[in-house]
Amino acid sequence: MALTPARTMPGVLELLPLDQIAFQRMLDTIRRNYERFGFLPIETPVIEHSDVLLTKSGGETERQVYFVQSTGALGAAAEKGGVPELALRFDLTVPLARYVAEHEHDLSFPFRRYQMQRVYRGERAQRGRFREFYQCDIDVIGKDSLSVRYDAEIPAVIYSVFRELNIGAFTIQLNNRKLMRGYFENLGVSDAEQQMLVLREVDKLDKRGADYVRETLTGDAFGLSAEVADKILAFVQVRSTSVSDAFAKLDALGSGSETFEQGRAELKEVLAMIRDFDVPETHFALNLSIARGLDYYTGTVYETTLNDHLGIGSICSGGRYENLAGQYTKSHLPGVGISIGLTRLYWQLRDAGLISTAQSTVDVLVTQMDAAQLPAYLTLATELRNAGIATEVVLEGSKLGKQFKYADRAGIRFVIVLGEDEIAKGVVTVKDLRREDQFEVARTELVKTLRVELAQADIGR
Amino acid sequence: MALTPARTMPGVLELLPLDQIAFQRMLDTIRRNYERFGFLPIETPVIEHSDVLLTKSGGETERQVYFVQSTGALGAAAEKGGVPELALRFDLTVPLARYVAEHEHDLSFPFRRYQMQRVYRGERAQRGRFREFYQCDIDVIGKDSLSVRYDAEIPAVIYSVFRELNIGAFTIQLNNRKLMRGYFENLGVSDAEQQMLVLREVDKLDKRGADYVRETLTGDAFGLSAEVADKILAFVQVRSTSVSDAFAKLDALGSGSETFEQGRAELKEVLAMIRDFDVPETHFALNLSIARGLDYYTGTVYETTLNDHLGIGSICSGGRYENLAGQYTKSHLPGVGISIGLTRLYWQLRDAGLISTAQSTVDVLVTQMDAAQLPAYLTLATELRNAGIATEVVLEGSKLGKQFKYADRAGIRFVIVLGEDEIAKGVVTVKDLRREDQFEVARTELVKTLRVELAQADIGR
Repeated sequence: MALTPARTMPGVLELLPLDQIAFQRMLDTIRRNYERFGFLPIETPVIEHSDVLLTKSGGETERQVYFVQSTGALGAAAEKGGVPELALRFDLTVPLARYVAEHEHDLSFPFRRYQMQRVYRGERAQRGRFREFYQCDIDVIGKDSLSVRYDAEIPAVIYSVFRELNIGAFTIQLNNRKLMRGYFENLGVSDAEQQMLVLREVDKLDKRGADYVRETLTGDAFGLSAEVADKILAFVQVRSTSVSDAFAKLDALGSGSETFEQGRAELKEVLAMIRDFDVPETHFALNLSIARGLDYYTGTVYETTLNDHLGIGSICSGGRYENLAGQYTKSHLPGVGISIGLTRLYWQLRDAGLISTAQSTVDVLVTQMDAAQLPAYLTLATELRNAGIATEVVLEGSKLGKQFKYADRAGIRFVIVLGEDEIAKGVVTVKDLRREDQFEVARTELVKTLRVELAQADIGR
Repeated sequence: MALTPARTMPGVLELLPLDQIAFQRMLDTIRRNYERFGFLPIETPVIEHSDVLLTKSGGETERQVYFVQSTGALGAAAEKGGVPELALRFDLTVPLARYVAEHEHDLSFPFRRYQMQRVYRGERAQRGRFREFYQCDIDVIGKDSLSVRYDAEIPAVIYSVFRELNIGAFTIQLNNRKLMRGYFENLGVSDAEQQMLVLREVDKLDKRGADYVRETLTGDAFGLSAEVADKILAFVQVRSTSVSDAFAKLDALGSGSETFEQGRAELKEVLAMIRDFDVPETHFALNLSIARGLDYYTGTVYETTLNDHLGIGSICSGGRYENLAGQYTKSHLPGVGISIGLTRLYWQLRDAGLISTAQSTVDVLVTQMDAAQLPAYLTLATELRNAGIATEVVLEGSKLGKQFKYADRAGIRFVIVLGEDEIAKGVVTVKDLRREDQFEVARTELVKTLRVELAQADIGR
């Protein structure tokens, strides 16, 4: 029989076990912090009805959707010229909207949910673009209304997550869509479409420089006056160094429309309250260039960047939206939330050398020095496991050196050697492969000793 | 705009948050036990190349496969009359085979992996049948060979998992395909296909009774002699009550072919060694009616049943196979493993009333008695969170009674009330909604007190 080449599809990240452990630890850290802030878990099916998924999305999203058909249905849709009935979710927000609309009467509001699952996008394959990736989302959904105070809680969660992920200094950057919209309207750029085009140009500031952007904005395509272009450029370059600096810079923008003033008031309330949440002022700042999805977010918007790796871009983004599930229910459900694209983040951090290889989840390898002692090895392993110590036993005999090499390669730190002599003396020999050290310990003290060593290692992890 | 009805596709299990928490606790328990036995995590993509997924599977599996096409590729395959290039995995075994073949040179053998992910089958929708469900698998894969001792370790893991899941008394039942095959060959039923048909009849024993099955086996379809039929019926009814009973019953089968004797020797070694793994003899037994997938398993086979709920069927099954990945690699990779179909198990347990509603992951709700004190509430919450206590703060004011009702409905046990008086006195009022009790505690003692209460609750969980 000819062999089928074993391969994954392009655009997925499949990890070797030690990398998977590092990834899993990041997932666990995020989950622990989401739970600490009182968010509740939900999971939704990967497959949804196509009409449910595609109510809101524009052309681009539709081109990226993976459709699903069971064998029986294959071709039927194509013959009818239609779209298949089922598709894979491309984010966790649309499924959340469907979930809240479907289970509305069984949920308590404000509904605080976290969801950490994979999503699918049929993107063209290229380096750093994934067709399957984890999103780790939180959202707070209100019924009818939701206080802007929840907008201040979100950065507290972000701070807690990334402090514990321990991947370097970071800054949570905030803006407000009302402030931005009001400011642009004031300058005569009131069409939403045109605002978006202007912002897209402004996005090139870092790469092309202010002169290039000013020229484009005052050119034929936009036809803005030099004064308006300068005001836009000044606005989007506002950054703050502290809450009081942010207040001063917001005040310096002058007065504006009702929308503008509402945005400014919201931003001030949010910035002041983030401080009450004990987030250090070094870790959040005003950044008036942040826009996010213009058709979706309506108030506060967030991005988070690593101070020493700005090239990685935003590692956690989101914002406030007016109505989550208008396509499914007449209930008015405002919300605020963020998403961490963990697959891409992990890949970028690894690429930048910011993730060290994980130690194995296996704490101890009990070697097989003497096959006749196997029952003793198994009893020892049971004792360790009952104490919560992850233990593997070598069940197939080989040379001790080979067993040590296996442990080393597998990232297992402690190796236990137990021969007839040791059993007679009531002791156990422990090799610490990380410290390249070896010691003898009384059999009765083994669990206690290893627990202490492993607890110390956990702190250093 | 007309509303789209918010609904999931049939055949999926979507849970409300408190149920999701109960489900997640089961996943965590399984994972903790898998890790305790030294299994390493892997995750594979949901989407695989169709030719990789479908090399081995027969017609039935193919009919149940979900194929995947991005928008651009839609219809193209149908026009060519072919099968789409991509499909969703229908189990975790084929992806494991592909993974091991693909990464063979980066893995250490014996390769011990666990994998807990969802799989997809386009089954006809009916009660208790799921199109999307979790499988929680472990496998040990050897290179060239794998000692039968690993077959004895698997029941130790099963025992550890289900003891901790705490869903009632259970029995791990064992058989060996070589013993079974040898016994049938001895009786002249040597064709694998015919063996399977006979076993399918024998499976009706419980429902139709021995007379019915004997009649069928001696009838035209099978044409077996009465003596052979009786021997088959006697064989498949063998059960043991202890290891020594199992040995006696295996010996009583008389002598047989080389295959038969090899199967018997393996079973004896495995049964004796399970005891060395400290699995009580009340929790495992010989059951010579167990066959599992005849084309796949080649040695030990396992099923696990709940003693008081036999109707639920096997809650954890698996066995030994000769060669994992022959379709992808020339390497010989024998293995042994099991799978827990958690979605179905959870659904069945809940249906049978064996799962109690979970307490929330949120430990504490800090109420908002006085909006002016919000900064104090936030500081208190930060303290609790830093101590690892999951805390939600009411950010939007409402009557206290309504806030209590929210906590109660959401399954949150502790509610904290903090007014001006309490702040002045340096105390906090704690309402314990489970005990319907309320007490005052010094602010400085709050973390310690709650930690003790929550640790006790954990034990009772």
